[in-house]
Amino acid sequence: MDNYIKKILYLGPEGSNSQLAAGIFENKLEINTEMTPVSTITKAIEILDEENEDVAAVLPIENSIEGIVRETIDNLIQTKADVFIQAEITVPICHCLIAKGKKEEIKTIVSITQAVAQCKKYIAENFPKDIGIILYSSTSGAAKFIKDKDNSYASISNELCAGLYGLNVVEKDINDVKDNKTRFILVARKKLCKQKKLRTSIAFTTENKPGALLNILEIFKNNNLNLIYLESRPSKKVFGEYIFYADIDKGYDEIKDVLAEIDKKCSYYRLLGSYCIL
Amino acid sequence: MDNYIKKILYLGPEGSNSQLAAGIFENKLEINTEMTPVSTITKAIEILDEENEDVAAVLPIENSIEGIVRETIDNLIQTKADVFIQAEITVPICHCLIAKGKKEEIKTIVSITQAVAQCKKYIAENFPKDIGIILYSSTSGAAKFIKDKDNSYASISNELCAGLYGLNVVEKDINDVKDNKTRFILVARKKLCKQKKLRTSIAFTTENKPGALLNILEIFKNNNLNLIYLESRPSKKVFGEYIFYADIDKGYDEIKDVLAEIDKKCSYYRLLGSYCIL
Repeated sequence: MDNYIKKILYLGPEGSNSQLAAGIFENKLEINTEMTPVSTITKAIEILDEENEDVAAVLPIENSIEGIVRETIDNLIQTKADVFIQAEITVPICHCLIAKGKKEEIKTIVSITQAVAQCKKYIAENFPKDIGIILYSSTSGAAKFIKDKDNSYASISNELCAGLYGLNVVEKDINDVKDNKTRFILVARKKLCKQKKLRTSIAFTTENKPGALLNILEIFKNNNLNLIYLESRPSKKVFGEYIFYADIDKGYDEIKDVLAEIDKKCSYYRLLGSYCIL
Repeated sequence: MDNYIKKILYLGPEGSNSQLAAGIFENKLEINTEMTPVSTITKAIEILDEENEDVAAVLPIENSIEGIVRETIDNLIQTKADVFIQAEITVPICHCLIAKGKKEEIKTIVSITQAVAQCKKYIAENFPKDIGIILYSSTSGAAKFIKDKDNSYASISNELCAGLYGLNVVEKDINDVKDNKTRFILVARKKLCKQKKLRTSIAFTTENKPGALLNILEIFKNNNLNLIYLESRPSKKVFGEYIFYADIDKGYDEIKDVLAEIDKKCSYYRLLGSYCIL
Protein backbone atom coordinates (compact mmCIF):
# COMPACT_ATOMS: atom_id res chain seq x y z
CA MET A 1 0.00 0.00 0.00
CA ASP A 2 1.23 3.46 -0.89
CA ASN A 3 1.27 5.37 2.38
CA TYR A 4 2.32 8.72 0.89
CA ILE A 5 0.46 11.59 2.49
CA LYS A 6 1.30 15.24 1.79
CA LYS A 7 0.20 16.42 5.21
CA ILE A 8 -1.64 15.42 8.36
CA LEU A 9 -3.90 18.08 9.87
CA TYR A 10 -4.34 18.22 13.65
CA LEU A 11 -6.13 20.54 16.08
CA GLY A 12 -3.58 23.15 17.07
CA PRO A 13 -1.80 25.07 18.28
CA GLU A 14 1.37 23.00 18.60
CA GLY A 15 1.56 20.78 21.67
CA SER A 16 -2.09 19.68 21.61
CA ASN A 17 -3.25 16.16 22.43
CA SER A 18 -4.31 15.96 18.77
CA GLN A 19 -0.68 16.49 17.78
CA LEU A 20 0.37 13.73 20.20
CA ALA A 21 -2.22 11.47 18.55
CA ALA A 22 -1.02 12.47 15.08
CA GLY A 23 2.52 11.43 16.06
CA ILE A 24 1.28 8.00 17.17
CA PHE A 25 -0.61 7.50 13.89
CA GLU A 26 2.45 8.57 11.91
CA ASN A 27 4.59 6.11 13.81
CA LYS A 28 2.23 3.13 13.73
CA LEU A 29 1.32 3.58 10.08
CA GLU A 30 4.90 4.38 9.05
CA ILE A 31 3.97 7.65 7.43
CA ASN A 32 6.55 10.41 7.43
CA THR A 33 4.95 13.68 6.54
CA GLU A 34 4.32 17.32 7.33
CA MET A 35 2.06 18.06 10.33
CA THR A 36 -0.15 21.12 9.98
CA PRO A 37 -2.17 22.62 12.84
CA VAL A 38 -5.72 23.84 12.10
CA SER A 39 -7.95 25.89 14.39
CA THR A 40 -11.15 23.81 14.38
CA ILE A 41 -12.48 20.35 13.48
CA THR A 42 -14.80 21.97 10.92
CA LYS A 43 -11.81 23.64 9.26
CA ALA A 44 -9.97 20.29 9.03
CA ILE A 45 -12.93 18.65 7.28
CA GLU A 46 -13.29 21.66 4.95
CA ILE A 47 -9.67 21.22 3.85
CA LEU A 48 -10.22 17.47 3.29
CA ASP A 49 -13.30 18.34 1.24
CA GLU A 50 -11.46 20.80 -0.96
CA GLU A 51 -7.97 19.40 -1.39
CA ASN A 52 -6.70 16.35 -3.22
CA GLU A 53 -6.56 12.89 -1.73
CA ASP A 54 -3.12 13.21 -0.16
CA VAL A 55 -4.34 14.94 2.98
CA ALA A 56 -5.39 13.26 6.24
CA ALA A 57 -6.74 14.68 9.51
CA VAL A 58 -6.55 13.50 13.11
CA LEU A 59 -9.80 14.21 14.96
CA PRO A 60 -10.95 13.46 18.52
CA ILE A 61 -14.10 11.32 18.42
CA GLU A 62 -14.81 10.38 22.04
CA ASN A 63 -13.54 11.29 25.48
CA SER A 64 -14.16 9.02 28.46
CA ILE A 65 -15.56 11.90 30.55
CA GLU A 66 -17.13 14.28 28.03
CA GLY A 67 -18.56 11.70 25.64
CA ILE A 68 -18.74 11.81 21.87
CA VAL A 69 -17.18 14.83 20.11
CA ARG A 70 -20.18 16.27 18.32
CA GLU A 71 -18.29 18.55 15.97
CA THR A 72 -16.45 15.51 14.59
CA ILE A 73 -19.60 13.37 14.13
CA ASP A 74 -21.62 16.23 12.61
CA ASN A 75 -18.85 17.07 10.14
CA LEU A 76 -18.28 13.44 9.15
CA ILE A 77 -22.00 13.10 8.43
CA GLN A 78 -22.16 16.33 6.45
CA THR A 79 -18.98 16.18 4.37
CA LYS A 80 -19.58 15.89 0.63
CA ALA A 81 -16.25 14.24 -0.17
CA ASP A 82 -15.40 10.54 0.00
CA VAL A 83 -13.68 10.97 3.32
CA PHE A 84 -13.63 7.89 5.54
CA ILE A 85 -12.28 6.89 8.93
CA GLN A 86 -9.09 4.89 8.27
CA ALA A 87 -7.78 4.10 11.75
CA GLU A 88 -8.37 4.68 15.46
CA ILE A 89 -6.22 5.00 18.57
CA THR A 90 -6.93 5.69 22.25
CA VAL A 91 -4.68 8.22 24.00
CA PRO A 92 -4.53 8.78 27.78
CA ILE A 93 -5.11 12.45 28.66
CA CYS A 94 -2.69 13.57 31.35
CA HIS A 95 -3.36 17.09 32.61
CA CYS A 96 -0.36 18.89 34.09
CA LEU A 97 -0.14 22.23 35.80
CA ILE A 98 2.58 24.12 33.95
CA ALA A 99 3.93 27.59 34.65
CA LYS A 100 6.89 29.91 34.23
CA GLY A 101 7.57 30.10 37.95
CA LYS A 102 6.77 28.19 41.11
CA LYS A 103 3.50 26.89 42.53
CA GLU A 104 3.44 29.57 45.26
CA GLU A 105 3.47 32.34 42.66
CA ILE A 106 0.38 31.15 40.74
CA LYS A 107 -2.62 33.47 40.90
CA THR A 108 -4.38 32.64 37.59
CA ILE A 109 -4.97 29.29 35.86
CA VAL A 110 -5.69 29.18 32.14
CA SER A 111 -7.18 26.24 30.22
CA ILE A 112 -10.12 24.89 28.23
CA THR A 113 -13.45 24.54 30.11
CA GLN A 114 -13.31 20.73 30.14
CA ALA A 115 -9.78 20.58 31.61
CA VAL A 116 -10.69 23.06 34.35
CA ALA A 117 -13.78 20.97 35.18
CA GLN A 118 -11.70 17.76 35.19
CA CYS A 119 -9.19 19.26 37.66
CA LYS A 120 -11.75 21.06 39.86
CA LYS A 121 -10.95 19.06 43.00
CA TYR A 122 -7.20 19.51 42.54
CA ILE A 123 -7.61 23.29 42.12
CA ALA A 124 -9.90 23.56 45.17
CA GLU A 125 -7.46 21.63 47.36
CA ASN A 126 -4.31 23.41 46.17
CA PHE A 127 -5.32 27.02 45.61
CA PRO A 128 -7.34 29.67 47.46
CA LYS A 129 -11.00 30.14 46.54
CA ASP A 130 -10.33 33.39 44.68
CA ILE A 131 -7.82 31.91 42.20
CA GLY A 132 -8.40 33.46 38.78
CA ILE A 133 -9.61 31.11 36.05
CA ILE A 134 -9.31 32.10 32.37
CA LEU A 135 -11.06 29.85 29.88
CA TYR A 136 -9.24 29.26 26.61
CA SER A 137 -10.18 27.32 23.48
CA SER A 138 -7.50 24.62 23.88
CA THR A 139 -5.00 23.32 26.44
CA SER A 140 -2.02 23.98 24.14
CA GLY A 141 -3.40 27.44 23.30
CA ALA A 142 -3.49 28.14 27.04
CA ALA A 143 0.20 27.19 27.37
CA LYS A 144 1.09 29.41 24.42
CA PHE A 145 -0.94 32.24 26.00
CA ILE A 146 0.92 32.16 29.34
CA LYS A 147 4.42 31.92 27.86
CA ASP A 148 4.57 35.73 27.46
CA LYS A 149 2.94 36.44 30.82
CA ASP A 150 4.54 36.81 34.25
CA ASN A 151 5.08 34.05 36.86
CA SER A 152 1.57 34.42 38.30
CA TYR A 153 0.06 32.53 35.34
CA ALA A 154 -0.23 28.75 34.98
CA SER A 155 -1.99 26.57 32.44
CA ILE A 156 -3.48 23.10 32.51
CA SER A 157 -1.87 21.45 29.50
CA ASN A 158 0.04 18.31 28.64
CA GLU A 159 3.75 17.78 29.32
CA LEU A 160 4.69 18.34 25.67
CA CYS A 161 3.58 21.98 26.00
CA ALA A 162 5.99 22.63 28.87
CA GLY A 163 8.98 21.77 26.69
CA LEU A 164 7.57 23.48 23.64
CA TYR A 165 6.77 26.80 25.30
CA GLY A 166 9.66 26.89 27.81
CA LEU A 167 7.54 26.31 30.92
CA ASN A 168 7.94 24.14 34.03
CA VAL A 169 5.79 21.19 34.98
CA VAL A 170 4.59 22.26 38.45
CA GLU A 171 2.53 19.11 38.99
CA LYS A 172 1.81 16.07 36.83
CA ASP A 173 -1.40 14.10 36.45
CA ILE A 174 -3.75 16.47 38.26
CA ASN A 175 -6.98 15.00 36.78
CA ASP A 176 -9.63 14.31 39.44
CA VAL A 177 -10.84 11.27 37.51
CA LYS A 178 -7.88 9.12 36.60
CA ASP A 179 -9.36 7.19 33.67
CA ASN A 180 -9.30 10.13 31.24
CA LYS A 181 -8.80 8.93 27.66
CA THR A 182 -9.63 10.20 24.21
CA ARG A 183 -10.25 8.12 21.10
CA PHE A 184 -8.80 9.77 18.01
CA ILE A 185 -9.56 8.85 14.40
CA LEU A 186 -7.51 9.35 11.28
CA VAL A 187 -9.72 10.42 8.39
CA ALA A 188 -8.70 10.60 4.72
CA ARG A 189 -9.85 9.72 1.25
CA LYS A 190 -6.92 7.38 0.85
CA LYS A 191 -6.70 3.94 2.50
CA LEU A 192 -3.84 4.24 4.97
CA CYS A 193 -4.03 1.16 7.16
CA LYS A 194 -2.94 -2.33 6.11
CA GLN A 195 -4.18 -4.04 9.25
CA LYS A 196 -7.44 -5.90 9.71
CA LYS A 197 -10.52 -3.70 9.84
CA LEU A 198 -12.10 -4.23 13.25
CA ARG A 199 -14.70 -1.53 13.46
CA THR A 200 -17.31 0.10 11.23
CA SER A 201 -19.10 3.40 11.82
CA ILE A 202 -22.37 4.32 10.13
CA ALA A 203 -24.95 7.10 10.29
CA PHE A 204 -28.66 6.59 9.58
CA THR A 205 -32.10 8.11 10.00
CA THR A 206 -35.07 5.85 10.69
CA GLU A 207 -38.62 6.58 9.65
CA ASN A 208 -40.26 8.84 12.21
CA LYS A 209 -42.60 6.31 13.83
CA PRO A 210 -42.68 4.31 17.08
CA GLY A 211 -40.39 1.32 17.10
CA ALA A 212 -38.45 2.38 13.98
CA LEU A 213 -35.11 2.46 15.81
CA LEU A 214 -35.92 -0.86 17.49
CA ASN A 215 -36.50 -2.44 14.07
CA ILE A 216 -33.00 -1.39 13.05
CA LEU A 217 -31.46 -2.61 16.30
CA GLU A 218 -33.19 -5.97 15.80
CA ILE A 219 -31.37 -6.37 12.49
CA PHE A 220 -28.11 -6.09 14.42
CA LYS A 221 -29.27 -8.59 17.04
CA ASN A 222 -30.57 -11.11 14.49
CA ASN A 223 -27.14 -11.07 12.87
CA ASN A 224 -25.29 -11.40 16.20
CA LEU A 225 -23.71 -7.99 15.79
CA ASN A 226 -22.69 -6.00 18.83
CA LEU A 227 -23.46 -2.32 18.60
CA ILE A 228 -20.71 -0.78 20.72
CA TYR A 229 -21.92 2.78 20.44
CA LEU A 230 -25.17 4.49 19.55
CA GLU A 231 -25.76 8.22 19.66
CA SER A 232 -28.48 10.45 18.28
CA ARG A 233 -27.64 13.80 16.70
CA PRO A 234 -30.24 16.40 15.71
CA SER A 235 -30.98 16.39 11.97
CA LYS A 236 -30.75 20.23 12.19
CA LYS A 237 -33.81 20.36 9.95
CA VAL A 238 -36.79 19.40 12.12
CA PHE A 239 -36.74 19.55 15.94
CA GLY A 240 -37.12 16.02 17.24
CA GLU A 241 -35.74 14.37 14.09
CA TYR A 242 -32.43 12.58 14.61
CA ILE A 243 -29.54 11.06 12.74
CA PHE A 244 -28.14 8.05 14.59
CA TYR A 245 -24.42 7.40 14.74
CA ALA A 246 -23.41 3.80 15.43
CA ASP A 247 -20.17 1.83 15.87
CA ILE A 248 -20.13 -1.91 15.14
CA ASP A 249 -17.24 -4.15 16.25
CA LYS A 250 -16.67 -5.82 12.86
CA GLY A 251 -15.04 -4.79 9.59
CA TYR A 252 -17.13 -3.82 6.55
CA ASP A 253 -16.46 -7.00 4.55
CA GLU A 254 -17.92 -9.17 7.30
CA ILE A 255 -21.13 -7.18 7.62
CA LYS A 256 -21.84 -5.67 4.22
CA ASP A 257 -25.04 -7.67 3.72
CA VAL A 258 -26.39 -6.49 7.08
CA LEU A 259 -25.49 -2.90 6.24
CA ALA A 260 -27.27 -3.22 2.88
CA GLU A 261 -30.39 -4.36 4.76
CA ILE A 262 -30.15 -1.37 7.11
CA ASP A 263 -29.62 0.98 4.17
CA LYS A 264 -32.87 -0.33 2.63
CA LYS A 265 -34.87 0.27 5.83
CA CYS A 266 -33.57 3.80 6.49
CA SER A 267 -34.54 7.13 4.94
CA TYR A 268 -30.86 8.15 5.20
CA TYR A 269 -27.78 5.95 5.44
CA ARG A 270 -24.06 6.66 5.22
CA LEU A 271 -20.95 4.58 5.77
CA LEU A 272 -18.49 6.70 7.74
CA GLY A 273 -15.67 4.20 7.55
CA SER A 274 -14.42 0.72 8.26
CA TYR A 275 -11.10 0.88 10.03
CA CYS A 276 -8.36 -0.71 12.08
CA ILE A 277 -7.70 -0.10 15.75
CA LEU A 278 -4.02 0.60 16.31
CA MET B 1 -51.34 23.16 44.96
CA ASP B 2 -49.11 25.58 46.83
CA ASN B 3 -46.99 27.25 44.17
CA TYR B 4 -44.84 29.29 46.55
CA ILE B 5 -41.22 29.34 45.45
CA LYS B 6 -38.60 31.51 47.13
CA LYS B 7 -36.53 31.91 43.98
CA ILE B 8 -36.02 30.63 40.46
CA LEU B 9 -32.42 30.22 39.33
CA TYR B 10 -31.51 30.79 35.69
CA LEU B 11 -28.30 30.85 33.67
CA GLY B 12 -27.13 34.44 33.69
CA PRO B 13 -26.14 37.12 33.28
CA GLU B 14 -29.40 39.03 32.91
CA GLY B 15 -30.95 38.95 29.46
CA SER B 16 -30.17 35.29 28.75
CA ASN B 17 -32.51 32.93 26.93
CA SER B 18 -32.72 31.04 30.23
CA GLN B 19 -34.17 34.16 31.82
CA LEU B 20 -36.71 34.43 28.98
CA ALA B 21 -37.65 30.80 29.63
CA ALA B 22 -37.88 31.46 33.39
CA GLY B 23 -40.34 34.29 32.68
CA ILE B 24 -42.53 31.96 30.61
CA PHE B 25 -42.53 29.32 33.37
CA GLU B 26 -43.39 31.96 35.95
CA ASN B 27 -46.27 33.18 33.84
CA LYS B 28 -47.71 29.80 32.85
CA LEU B 29 -47.43 28.33 36.34
CA GLU B 30 -48.63 31.55 38.03
CA ILE B 31 -45.58 31.79 40.24
CA ASN B 32 -44.45 35.26 41.28
CA THR B 33 -40.99 35.12 42.70
CA GLU B 34 -37.43 36.37 42.73
CA MET B 35 -35.24 35.47 39.74
CA THR B 36 -31.57 34.82 40.50
CA PRO B 37 -28.88 34.43 37.84
CA VAL B 38 -26.25 31.72 38.35
CA SER B 39 -23.06 31.25 36.34
CA THR B 40 -23.31 27.56 35.38
CA ILE B 41 -25.78 24.67 35.22
CA THR B 42 -23.64 22.77 37.74
CA LYS B 43 -23.88 25.71 40.17
CA ALA B 44 -27.70 25.75 39.83
CA ILE B 45 -27.96 22.05 40.69
CA GLU B 46 -25.52 22.49 43.61
CA ILE B 47 -27.81 25.17 45.06
CA LEU B 48 -30.87 22.92 44.62
CA ASP B 49 -28.96 20.14 46.38
CA GLU B 50 -28.02 22.29 49.35
CA GLU B 51 -30.98 24.58 49.89
CA ASN B 52 -34.49 23.89 51.10
CA GLU B 53 -37.32 22.84 48.86
CA ASP B 54 -38.50 26.33 47.90
CA VAL B 55 -35.95 26.80 45.13
CA ALA B 56 -36.41 25.94 41.44
CA ALA B 57 -34.04 26.16 38.45
CA VAL B 58 -34.60 26.68 34.75
CA LEU B 59 -32.15 24.62 32.68
CA PRO B 60 -31.72 24.14 28.93
CA ILE B 61 -32.07 20.45 28.06
CA GLU B 62 -31.98 20.29 24.26
CA ASN B 63 -31.30 22.61 21.35
CA SER B 64 -32.51 21.80 17.86
CA ILE B 65 -29.05 22.37 16.35
CA GLU B 66 -26.61 21.46 19.13
CA GLY B 67 -28.51 18.50 20.60
CA ILE B 68 -28.87 17.49 24.22
CA VAL B 69 -27.28 19.75 26.85
CA ARG B 70 -24.85 17.37 28.50
CA GLU B 71 -24.14 19.46 31.58
CA THR B 72 -27.86 19.37 32.42
CA ILE B 73 -28.26 15.60 31.91
CA ASP B 74 -25.04 14.74 33.76
CA ASN B 75 -26.01 16.92 36.73
CA LEU B 76 -29.57 15.58 36.88
CA ILE B 77 -28.18 12.06 36.96
CA GLN B 78 -25.59 12.86 39.64
CA THR B 79 -27.58 15.04 42.04
CA LYS B 80 -28.09 13.51 45.48
CA ALA B 81 -31.25 15.44 46.30
CA ASP B 82 -34.85 14.59 45.36
CA VAL B 83 -34.81 17.06 42.52
CA PHE B 84 -37.16 16.25 39.64
CA ILE B 85 -38.17 17.80 36.34
CA GLN B 86 -41.53 19.51 36.94
CA ALA B 87 -42.33 21.13 33.59
CA GLU B 88 -41.00 21.74 30.09
CA ILE B 89 -41.31 24.50 27.47
CA THR B 90 -39.81 25.08 24.02
CA VAL B 91 -38.45 28.55 23.27
CA PRO B 92 -37.46 29.83 19.79
CA ILE B 93 -33.90 31.18 19.77
CA CYS B 94 -33.70 34.40 17.80
CA HIS B 95 -30.15 35.69 17.36
CA CYS B 96 -29.81 39.44 16.81
CA LEU B 97 -26.76 41.52 16.01
CA ILE B 98 -26.71 44.25 18.65
CA ALA B 99 -24.26 47.14 19.01
CA LYS B 100 -23.74 50.60 20.42
CA GLY B 101 -23.34 52.15 16.99
CA LYS B 102 -24.13 51.40 13.37
CA LYS B 103 -23.47 48.34 11.24
CA GLU B 104 -20.71 50.13 9.26
CA GLU B 105 -18.73 50.76 12.45
CA ILE B 106 -18.56 47.09 13.55
CA LYS B 107 -15.09 45.54 13.56
CA THR B 108 -15.46 42.86 16.26
CA ILE B 109 -18.32 40.47 17.01
CA VAL B 110 -18.63 38.91 20.46
CA SER B 111 -20.76 35.87 21.36
CA ILE B 112 -20.82 32.26 22.53
CA THR B 113 -19.21 29.67 20.16
CA GLN B 114 -22.58 28.12 19.22
CA ALA B 115 -24.18 31.46 18.28
CA VAL B 116 -21.18 32.42 16.12
CA ALA B 117 -21.39 29.02 14.38
CA GLN B 118 -25.14 29.41 13.87
CA CYS B 119 -24.70 32.83 12.23
CA LYS B 120 -21.60 31.93 10.21
CA LYS B 121 -23.23 32.51 6.83
CA TYR B 122 -24.70 35.85 7.90
CA ILE B 123 -21.31 37.05 9.19
CA ALA B 124 -19.51 35.91 5.99
CA GLU B 125 -22.03 37.70 3.77
CA ASN B 126 -22.17 40.92 5.78
CA PHE B 127 -18.65 41.50 7.06
CA PRO B 128 -15.11 41.36 5.65
CA LYS B 129 -13.09 38.19 6.14
CA ASP B 130 -10.89 39.76 8.81
CA ILE B 131 -13.74 40.70 11.17
CA GLY B 132 -12.65 40.04 14.77
CA ILE B 133 -14.49 37.30 16.63
CA ILE B 134 -14.33 37.11 20.43
CA LEU B 135 -15.83 34.02 22.02
CA TYR B 136 -17.69 34.54 25.27
CA SER B 137 -19.37 32.12 27.67
CA SER B 138 -22.94 33.35 27.00
CA THR B 139 -24.89 35.56 24.58
CA SER B 140 -26.09 37.86 27.37
CA GLY B 141 -22.58 38.01 28.85
CA ALA B 142 -21.37 39.13 25.41
CA ALA B 143 -23.91 41.97 25.38
CA LYS B 144 -22.86 43.01 28.87
CA PHE B 145 -19.20 42.88 27.77
CA ILE B 146 -19.68 45.25 24.81
CA LYS B 147 -21.76 47.83 26.67
CA ASP B 148 -18.63 49.54 28.00
CA LYS B 149 -16.70 49.26 24.73
CA ASP B 150 -16.65 51.62 21.76
CA ASN B 151 -18.90 51.49 18.67
CA SER B 152 -16.67 48.98 16.87
CA TYR B 153 -18.02 46.11 19.03
CA ALA B 154 -21.20 44.13 18.39
CA SER B 155 -22.63 41.04 20.04
CA ILE B 156 -24.91 38.22 18.92
CA SER B 157 -27.55 38.17 21.63
CA ASN B 158 -31.33 38.23 21.96
CA GLU B 159 -33.48 41.38 21.71
CA LEU B 160 -33.99 41.54 25.47
CA CYS B 161 -30.25 42.26 25.88
CA ALA B 162 -30.41 45.32 23.63
CA GLY B 163 -32.92 47.02 25.93
CA LEU B 164 -31.24 45.81 29.09
CA TYR B 165 -27.72 46.99 28.19
CA GLY B 166 -28.67 50.13 26.21
CA LEU B 167 -27.67 48.77 22.80
CA ASN B 168 -29.27 48.92 19.33
CA VAL B 169 -30.65 46.00 17.39
CA VAL B 170 -28.62 46.27 14.16
CA GLU B 171 -30.27 43.23 12.57
CA LYS B 172 -32.86 40.74 13.80
CA ASP B 173 -33.09 37.01 13.24
CA ILE B 174 -29.63 36.44 11.76
CA ASN B 175 -29.58 32.65 12.36
CA ASP B 176 -28.51 30.69 9.26
CA VAL B 177 -30.83 27.81 10.19
CA LYS B 178 -34.25 29.22 10.96
CA ASP B 179 -35.65 26.40 13.09
CA ASN B 180 -33.50 27.17 16.14
CA LYS B 181 -35.30 26.20 19.34
CA THR B 182 -34.33 25.21 22.84
CA ARG B 183 -36.29 23.01 25.23
CA PHE B 184 -36.01 24.24 28.83
CA ILE B 185 -36.98 22.32 31.95
CA LEU B 186 -38.00 23.57 35.36
CA VAL B 187 -36.44 21.43 38.08
CA ALA B 188 -37.31 21.53 41.76
CA ARG B 189 -38.04 19.31 44.74
CA LYS B 190 -41.53 20.71 44.97
CA LYS B 191 -44.37 19.77 42.58
CA LEU B 192 -45.12 22.96 40.69
CA CYS B 193 -47.36 21.95 37.81
CA LYS B 194 -51.05 21.12 38.12
CA GLN B 195 -51.46 20.01 34.52
CA LYS B 196 -51.42 16.49 33.18
CA LYS B 197 -48.01 14.85 33.15
CA LEU B 198 -47.20 14.05 29.54
CA ARG B 199 -43.59 13.06 29.61
CA THR B 200 -41.24 10.99 31.79
CA SER B 201 -37.44 11.04 31.77
CA ILE B 202 -35.30 8.23 33.15
CA ALA B 203 -31.63 7.27 33.30
CA PHE B 204 -30.39 3.67 33.35
CA THR B 205 -27.35 1.49 32.83
CA THR B 206 -27.76 -1.92 31.21
CA GLU B 207 -25.56 -4.91 31.87
CA ASN B 208 -22.45 -4.70 29.73
CA LYS B 209 -23.25 -7.47 27.25
CA PRO B 210 -24.47 -7.65 23.62
CA GLY B 211 -28.17 -7.01 23.21
CA ALA B 212 -28.64 -5.61 26.73
CA LEU B 213 -29.93 -2.27 25.47
CA LEU B 214 -32.15 -4.01 22.95
CA ASN B 215 -33.75 -6.03 25.76
CA ILE B 216 -34.68 -2.80 27.49
CA LEU B 217 -36.01 -1.23 24.28
CA GLU B 218 -38.14 -4.33 23.71
CA ILE B 219 -39.85 -3.74 27.05
CA PHE B 220 -40.90 -0.33 25.71
CA LYS B 221 -42.12 -1.81 22.44
CA ASN B 222 -44.03 -4.66 24.10
CA ASN B 223 -45.89 -2.08 26.15
CA ASN B 224 -46.58 0.17 23.14
CA LEU B 225 -44.46 2.95 24.57
CA ASN B 226 -42.79 5.44 22.28
CA LEU B 227 -39.27 6.36 23.27
CA ILE B 228 -38.95 9.92 22.00
CA TYR B 229 -35.35 10.38 22.96
CA LEU B 230 -32.42 8.13 23.76
CA GLU B 231 -28.90 9.29 24.48
CA SER B 232 -25.87 7.61 25.97
CA ARG B 233 -23.61 9.44 28.39
CA PRO B 234 -20.25 8.11 29.60
CA SER B 235 -20.43 6.58 33.09
CA LYS B 236 -17.21 8.53 33.80
CA LYS B 237 -15.93 5.41 35.56
CA VAL B 238 -15.01 2.94 32.81
CA PHE B 239 -14.35 3.95 29.19
CA GLY B 240 -17.04 2.36 27.03
CA GLU B 241 -19.58 2.08 29.88
CA TYR B 242 -22.66 4.27 29.43
CA ILE B 243 -25.64 5.64 31.27
CA PHE B 244 -28.65 5.95 28.96
CA TYR B 245 -30.99 8.92 29.19
CA ALA B 246 -34.48 8.36 27.78
CA ASP B 247 -37.68 10.39 27.34
CA ILE B 248 -41.04 8.59 27.16
CA ASP B 249 -44.20 10.35 25.96
CA LYS B 250 -46.42 9.31 28.88
CA GLY B 251 -46.80 10.39 32.50
CA TYR B 252 -45.40 8.29 35.36
CA ASP B 253 -48.75 6.99 36.61
CA GLU B 254 -49.52 5.42 33.25
CA ILE B 255 -46.19 3.60 32.96
CA LYS B 256 -45.04 2.86 36.48
CA ASP B 257 -45.31 -0.92 36.04
CA VAL B 258 -43.14 -0.76 32.92
CA LEU B 259 -40.60 1.40 34.72
CA ALA B 260 -40.50 -1.08 37.61
CA GLU B 261 -39.72 -3.82 35.09
CA ILE B 262 -36.90 -1.73 33.60
CA ASP B 263 -35.55 -0.93 37.06
CA LYS B 264 -35.36 -4.68 37.77
CA LYS B 265 -33.40 -5.38 34.56
CA CYS B 266 -30.86 -2.54 34.96
CA SER B 267 -27.76 -2.28 37.11
CA TYR B 268 -28.61 1.41 37.64
CA TYR B 269 -31.96 3.16 37.28
CA ARG B 270 -33.19 6.64 38.21
CA LEU B 271 -36.42 8.52 37.60
CA LEU B 272 -35.48 12.07 36.57
CA GLY B 273 -39.03 13.35 36.54
CA SER B 274 -42.54 13.04 35.19
CA TYR B 275 -43.73 16.41 33.99
CA CYS B 276 -46.15 18.56 32.04
CA ILE B 277 -45.40 20.28 28.74
CA LEU B 278 -46.50 23.89 28.90
